[in-house]
Amino acid sequence: MTAETTAPTLSFEDFLVGQVFESKPYEITRDDSIRFASEFDPQEFHLDPDAADASFFKGLAVSGWHTAAIAMRLRVTTIRVKGGMVGAGIEEIRWTKPVRPGDVLRLREEVVGTRLLSSRPEYGLVKMNSTTTNQHGEIVMTMKVSALAPRRAVTMV
Amino acid sequence: MTAETTAPTLSFEDFLVGQVFESKPYEITRDDSIRFASEFDPQEFHLDPDAADASFFKGLAVSGWHTAAIAMRLRVTTIRVKGGMVGAGIEEIRWTKPVRPGDVLRLREEVVGTRLLSSRPEYGLVKMNSTTTNQHGEIVMTMKVSALAPRRAVTMV
Repeated sequence: MTAETTAPTLSFEDFLVGQVFESKPYEITRDDSIRFASEFDPQEFHLDPDAADASFFKGLAVSGWHTAAIAMRLRVTTIRVKGGMVGAGIEEIRWTKPVRPGDVLRLREEVVGTRLLSSRPEYGLVKMNSTTTNQHGEIVMTMKVSALAPRRAVTMV
Repeated sequence: MTAETTAPTLSFEDFLVGQVFESKPYEITRDDSIRFASEFDPQEFHLDPDAADASFFKGLAVSGWHTAAIAMRLRVTTIRVKGGMVGAGIEEIRWTKPVRPGDVLRLREEVVGTRLLSSRPEYGLVKMNSTTTNQHGEIVMTMKVSALAPRRAVTMV
């Protein structure tokens, strides 16, 4: 267990609208960026510096799906849900600014809604607005996340 | 260049509502699944078979963000956009069924809208509904994607 993962685990009842979670920083190295893009998003502007300079991004850019995957890492290492955070769905992703190799990202998650699920009485649904910023404080990605968390009453009987 | 990436490149004008693209199959190995989850989604039900058996997923599951990253790979190797496919945003992601290590995924993309952008006259916006299925033909993920493609008239003058 690293220091990142020692936060106490949360049940559904621990999530309150207005609550904010903030992650530690995460640096994306150039090697990591190119490795991810080679496997999952093999496009020139993610792989080839010269082609990237002439592209839409005007320079090497990190794949938006790499940024989304890093946001998930920061989410689950910052917000520890009992038994694991189960993604229910995403309502929206916006990539608002290019992410560059070497950037240092942070995640901020704000709880915007909680409700019980009649179909799954042992879980509740938590809605969060997720904002990823770079080292300049610029927002590079926003996301609306829905996740399941187990109810305390059920998990403790 | 692999065989996957030799399809002709498309401009905005080549996208027509109703058009369907279908990818080749892609197998997710257990090693790949655990490697991705270790880096981006380090939760027990993606990493530890015994803990996974007792979890929400009742068995080892592939991270939903791994499935999303694979869908991007299948998208950009099936639909080759001139200069690269620039993601404008995602309206919705639904993980409709667990993906298991060893599953073989395929992507189907249907063009559901195209329009010009007054803010970027050299590009057009293409909206696609994306469906990822497993080897049993079951839908494991759906997504609503918006991407930019360069206009032919501008890129050819």
